[in-house]
Amino acid sequence: MNFEHSEKSRAYVAKVRDFMQQKVLPQEASIMRENHAQNGHGNWQQWQLNPTVQALKAQAKAEGLWNLFLPDSEWGQGLSCVDYAPVAEAMGQSLLAPEIFNCNAPDTGNMEVLYHFGSDAQKSQWLTPLLNGDIRSVFGMTEPDVASSDATNMQVTITPEGDELVINGTKWWTTGLGHPNAKIAIVMGLSVPDADKHNRHSMVLVPLDTPGLTIKRMLTAYGDYDAPYGHGEMHFDNVRVPAANLIMGLGKGFAIAQGRLGPGRVHHCMRAIGAAERALSLMIQRGSTRVAFGQPIIKLGGNMERVAEARMLIDQARLLTLCAAWKIDNVGVKHAMTDISAIKVVVPNMLQQVVDMAIQMHGGAGMCGDLPLAGFAAMARSLRLADGPDEVHKAMVSRLELAKYKPAREAQSSSLAKES
Amino acid sequence: MNFEHSEKSRAYVAKVRDFMQQKVLPQEASIMRENHAQNGHGNWQQWQLNPTVQALKAQAKAEGLWNLFLPDSEWGQGLSCVDYAPVAEAMGQSLLAPEIFNCNAPDTGNMEVLYHFGSDAQKSQWLTPLLNGDIRSVFGMTEPDVASSDATNMQVTITPEGDELVINGTKWWTTGLGHPNAKIAIVMGLSVPDADKHNRHSMVLVPLDTPGLTIKRMLTAYGDYDAPYGHGEMHFDNVRVPAANLIMGLGKGFAIAQGRLGPGRVHHCMRAIGAAERALSLMIQRGSTRVAFGQPIIKLGGNMERVAEARMLIDQARLLTLCAAWKIDNVGVKHAMTDISAIKVVVPNMLQQVVDMAIQMHGGAGMCGDLPLAGFAAMARSLRLADGPDEVHKAMVSRLELAKYKPAREAQSSSLAKES
Amino acid sequence: MNFEHSEKSRAYVAKVRDFMQQKVLPQEASIMRENHAQNGHGNWQQWQLNPTVQALKAQAKAEGLWNLFLPDSEWGQGLSCVDYAPVAEAMGQSLLAPEIFNCNAPDTGNMEVLYHFGSDAQKSQWLTPLLNGDIRSVFGMTEPDVASSDATNMQVTITPEGDELVINGTKWWTTGLGHPNAKIAIVMGLSVPDADKHNRHSMVLVPLDTPGLTIKRMLTAYGDYDAPYGHGEMHFDNVRVPAANLIMGLGKGFAIAQGRLGPGRVHHCMRAIGAAERALSLMIQRGSTRVAFGQPIIKLGGNMERVAEARMLIDQARLLTLCAAWKIDNVGVKHAMTDISAIKVVVPNMLQQVVDMAIQMHGGAGMCGDLPLAGFAAMARSLRLADGPDEVHKAMVSRLELAKYKPAREAQSSSLAKES
Amino acid sequence: MNFEHSEKSRAYVAKVRDFMQQKVLPQEASIMRENHAQNGHGNWQQWQLNPTVQALKAQAKAEGLWNLFLPDSEWGQGLSCVDYAPVAEAMGQSLLAPEIFNCNAPDTGNMEVLYHFGSDAQKSQWLTPLLNGDIRSVFGMTEPDVASSDATNMQVTITPEGDELVINGTKWWTTGLGHPNAKIAIVMGLSVPDADKHNRHSMVLVPLDTPGLTIKRMLTAYGDYDAPYGHGEMHFDNVRVPAANLIMGLGKGFAIAQGRLGPGRVHHCMRAIGAAERALSLMIQRGSTRVAFGQPIIKLGGNMERVAEARMLIDQARLLTLCAAWKIDNVGVKHAMTDISAIKVVVPNMLQQVVDMAIQMHGGAGMCGDLPLAGFAAMARSLRLADGPDEVHKAMVSRLELAKYKPAREAQSSSLAKES
Repeated sequence: MNFEHSEKSRAYVAKVRDFMQQKVLPQEASIMRENHAQNGHGNWQQWQLNPTVQALKAQAKAEGLWNLFLPDSEWGQGLSCVDYAPVAEAMGQSLLAPEIFNCNAPDTGNMEVLYHFGSDAQKSQWLTPLLNGDIRSVFGMTEPDVASSDATNMQVTITPEGDELVINGTKWWTTGLGHPNAKIAIVMGLSVPDADKHNRHSMVLVPLDTPGLTIKRMLTAYGDYDAPYGHGEMHFDNVRVPAANLIMGLGKGFAIAQGRLGPGRVHHCMRAIGAAERALSLMIQRGSTRVAFGQPIIKLGGNMERVAEARMLIDQARLLTLCAAWKIDNVGVKHAMTDISAIKVVVPNMLQQVVDMAIQMHGGAGMCGDLPLAGFAAMARSLRLADGPDEVHKAMVSRLELAKYKPAREAQSSSLAKES
Repeated sequence: MNFEHSEKSRAYVAKVRDFMQQKVLPQEASIMRENHAQNGHGNWQQWQLNPTVQALKAQAKAEGLWNLFLPDSEWGQGLSCVDYAPVAEAMGQSLLAPEIFNCNAPDTGNMEVLYHFGSDAQKSQWLTPLLNGDIRSVFGMTEPDVASSDATNMQVTITPEGDELVINGTKWWTTGLGHPNAKIAIVMGLSVPDADKHNRHSMVLVPLDTPGLTIKRMLTAYGDYDAPYGHGEMHFDNVRVPAANLIMGLGKGFAIAQGRLGPGRVHHCMRAIGAAERALSLMIQRGSTRVAFGQPIIKLGGNMERVAEARMLIDQARLLTLCAAWKIDNVGVKHAMTDISAIKVVVPNMLQQVVDMAIQMHGGAGMCGDLPLAGFAAMARSLRLADGPDEVHKAMVSRLELAKYKPAREAQSSSLAKES
Repeated sequence: MNFEHSEKSRAYVAKVRDFMQQKVLPQEASIMRENHAQNGHGNWQQWQLNPTVQALKAQAKAEGLWNLFLPDSEWGQGLSCVDYAPVAEAMGQSLLAPEIFNCNAPDTGNMEVLYHFGSDAQKSQWLTPLLNGDIRSVFGMTEPDVASSDATNMQVTITPEGDELVINGTKWWTTGLGHPNAKIAIVMGLSVPDADKHNRHSMVLVPLDTPGLTIKRMLTAYGDYDAPYGHGEMHFDNVRVPAANLIMGLGKGFAIAQGRLGPGRVHHCMRAIGAAERALSLMIQRGSTRVAFGQPIIKLGGNMERVAEARMLIDQARLLTLCAAWKIDNVGVKHAMTDISAIKVVVPNMLQQVVDMAIQMHGGAGMCGDLPLAGFAAMARSLRLADGPDEVHKAMVSRLELAKYKPAREAQSSSLAKES
Repeated sequence: MNFEHSEKSRAYVAKVRDFMQQKVLPQEASIMRENHAQNGHGNWQQWQLNPTVQALKAQAKAEGLWNLFLPDSEWGQGLSCVDYAPVAEAMGQSLLAPEIFNCNAPDTGNMEVLYHFGSDAQKSQWLTPLLNGDIRSVFGMTEPDVASSDATNMQVTITPEGDELVINGTKWWTTGLGHPNAKIAIVMGLSVPDADKHNRHSMVLVPLDTPGLTIKRMLTAYGDYDAPYGHGEMHFDNVRVPAANLIMGLGKGFAIAQGRLGPGRVHHCMRAIGAAERALSLMIQRGSTRVAFGQPIIKLGGNMERVAEARMLIDQARLLTLCAAWKIDNVGVKHAMTDISAIKVVVPNMLQQVVDMAIQMHGGAGMCGDLPLAGFAAMARSLRLADGPDEVHKAMVSRLELAKYKPAREAQSSSLAKES
């Protein structure tokens, strides 16, 4: 047992922390102000990229702090999931960071899909520019008309017709759809209706400029458009793409999704942990400098206890996530299902709690855009729904727990239990 | 003991519920969409009133559903605090309603201040148009540079100079400041620095077009501007108003504030309870109609338990608030301090919990502007800070609790306690 | 709406509080010590009555503080449910009190059953001595071999044979079974197996000395036997009683149980609220007099906030219970089902929380028998299971909540909800 | 980073689990029944050892499953703190286990004190028989008359007089004091009143048969005497021991206590985790086999979610504890202060929650002595007070957290924070 990160991991953490401290955080407030002045409205077609972010992105790329999420040592830096985890945490301090390091969702997940399951042609057409940070991508999963928590409900159809695939239906909460560089969507939909439940859906690459594909609107998430990324609603009206745009094969949607999920959840969770650390840090700094009733407010009421609560929640959530990452690396996603579902529940809820405490310590300042806290709160709340709501993941954890008792329930129960 | 509302109260509840059901709720979604398309940006100077809301307001006025918050039977309808409470709950179903019935904060509180403490001239100049719904008002209390949870920290100065008062400093989170009809601010500030702590501050009427008063910006509250109301930051740079604009007298700020608070908190809380009922109702309807894993999602996992939790939280919070209202009417604000602070903590936290559950049942739909839930969530979160954060009110409740033991601690303690 | 108790109610509260303060609380510690020295073991046959308690009981009876739970004005004092509620709270301060005032469970419930549903012969034989406090009774409901949360699971059989009823099976958690004066059991069991689910069970009077009835043992509840009351396990082996011992009729068990439950739950809950007030009072007194790190411990960390939390939890729970009591009196048990189930969940959980905080403030003293806190903790925990676990009552509340939407779900939903 | 235990550790876990499964658990119910029949009363002088436990102890010793807590490889088996941790978890399944493996508190802590700080004479007189399991020991720390959460409050005096030490005062909650084999106490008290706060107290060895030392009574912890161990109150009335009984030196009490605490807390916590796993296991087995309303009760309401909650709470608490253990081994107690205080808060609270859920699933059976759950509940509740209440440890965690900001608060804060 060893709770120390590898030397390589620590080196990257140091570099990313340094970059964050020197280059990102000092400009965060002004970037967010500029961005909001520029893009703070629902007319997403007019959203523009922030030039400072673009410059930072170029710098990160030049310094080799690029695609660190990808275990591949050519395209990325060969960091395993558990090696990358604390790097993701360092990025999580600011909502601006993931894009700067080309480690933002959903591009990371999409790049992983293409990396593992894409054809050579798909890779050269879409993976290469994504890895270069030249374009961005979206992932069409959630639908407005069904409970998407049960993915088998999905109603968008991907129907083979000759050497084309025809796509119909509506997706929403498609993150990143408003970004000026968004060019390609990976869309999941029903294509083999008669197959068994988990072999009916396919994933297909759909360029966003394909005829019949309409971006209807951007949705606010807790009042915010998250510009210039956005969460969009897109309609597919007889959208046709070449059959070569299919990933892996017809009906392989769930198989791809399974492979895609493990590392992606670890990344999300580690960033959320970084956000929680930032929130705690802001909370302490605010509480130590503001005075009420003759004392720094952090000394008042239960505030010091809340600092301890936050520390204990964060540390536990981090260890759980690192353990999940380690299992993904060492025993594989299939043997880490409990862990992967558990972090998906634990971490966003932890972030929601910690941010709520931090906002409370800040008063009104905590709610407005001057600080990253309201953004973190929206992120936490969204993560409790995105990629399966809490309830679905708790159901998974408990089902796996009960399964342990199936084969030999009697053998494991003590005599006491038997007698009761 | 009698848990039934008076006949008069029930009659107004029925009328307001009917108005809500027939006229407001069916148009709520379209009004909010229009409003967001029109005003969903930070350039508050361009915010416009929604014509449908204005028409509904005229209708409500015509039907006598107007100024119901005011116990006065000429200007209002002579409803006591406990009589008005369930009427406020009925309005709380929609964020649009309070303005329609001329019962919106902070105008109600400001009207009460003028009603109870204003001079005749102040009343005719400002109270009359407010009661008529012709203009709107704001209340300048919170400041960015100090912990406003301790109101004695306040730094804005209101200095008498000859027959004028000179105002300097900054206020923020001034709600309603962006509204096109906002004309007048009641501002609280330091004016008798040498007096004892609670006799130093004054309240003064400041027309928003007074030279030296600048509205610097609107703040987002959880990503949303709450247009066309807005929460603003205003700067006072040697703003001069006639001494006649002083309310009650120099140093009377805290005395006025105390009188203003009791009923206002009941109103806020009852509206929040109405919002919680709406959230629960939406949660049940969504959960009963969406299907996942072969069942309506309300039957899955702990969802039914959450319905019960919500019902129990709401019912308790409502009774606590009604009891506070009844005490205000029957024994006075001074003898209802525990109750008034308790509801200020209990109700917004209850709303935050209930709305969180309702959002979770809705998935993505719960987070976006298509439903009132995200708005309710922001309202709940803001109420936990506005007008004193949770912590200040808990401190009040516990201080009053300990005070019960001061005179005769021994007499009250049992022999058991003594021996321990 | 009126939150003041009736004059009559206040008069009895004053008398009971005075009796508690003057006579019960000063002797509580010594009585509990004596009782534990005498009865603190599992050999229940040797348990003895405490002479001081018996003397106090005689005094209470002499002063007319007797059978106050019974609305009947001849046998009791004609207090309605809501009138009696604060009297029960006053008794709840000490675990010793209910017996002293002849208002202890399960005798109160049993007396109500006999009062409402007993034959004249049953009344004269059993109700009279119970009302006189000469004997005690038990109620046989819970069974060890089935989930008793679903009462239709019940396996004890009550079979008519000629003019006798034959009883077989096992009951446990039969409270009061170890009491030296316990003479009679009301037992519920299956007797019309072919009837529909809620008409299969009967209630029958079984004297505890009937041949074939064996008391197997007393159970500890959280380590404590609750002597001299006890929670027992009793076995019925072809126990025969005359058919005249049947209450109301064959298959009427559930009908009787329904009628029995409402007021009984209010009584339990009000006593629990009294216990919570006592716990809070002890917590404040302890916290104000013990010093650590240079301050009274109540000033440390989040302790003051916990005082406020306790006050807010208690006040809400009390109002909910009083409202349920008022509804029982004014609209009947059938229209108060949500309220009666809600208090059954809310109040014991509230007590568990408040007592937990009080114990924490006391350190080790809080856990041992020198103070009533550990007893209150066991009471709270038991109440969360007794008479239906939390889960069953939450299910009831949520089912009733959903039922509101059955007839006209569409009519009630707003346009917003429809569009989502 | 590596989340796998060492081979040696896994080997001992396997052996202990096997021993538990084969020998302890099958006899647990009957041992507890016998023990309760024999010792279930307050006359501790009559408590007797259970012969089955003694036989199991001999077996464990024979198999080398003995003193595993001690890192020493001669006396113990050379297991580091993190190696021993999962072994302690395996023992935690049953309250009977620690004694059987000679790994029970407070003997383990006392043995560590003697091992690290005892003189040769002290070791041969007391450590050897303790390591052999021939005698037992107690630790006198908590006092009834002061808030012992602030250890500097301690009032027992240990005064040097010639070549003797004279001890006066009262200790209570002295665990193990009722055990028939208890022979020796380590007592902490004030002996250098003029020294600075943390150099005033000494630790001294006091044989329990020393004249002047009276065991006044055993206390119930949540109604239970925990026989044959017991929690006692002992009085020191001019108790005299040779100066050679002093451990380390006058005023070294706090220094010794610090060294004693780290591993001891890990042991307590890991056992608590084992108890939580057992509780979860019983909960699942009960819930899967009992039927209500036509389904296994585990499928009803929120029960499956509670299984997931328990799994997530346990896994997080375990990782936090293992990390603390690893830090103790690798960076030392002084650099693991946050971790050691954090587990002291997190783990007992987790156990309290998990056991509460398990009891609720069992109904009445969960509260009585037929199952280990009520015992686990009392253990959890006691652990939240023993060795520093939650509040003291939260204060430590938050103080250390704030200390991170002392030297360079500005350097660490982002520009955003500064501007707010």
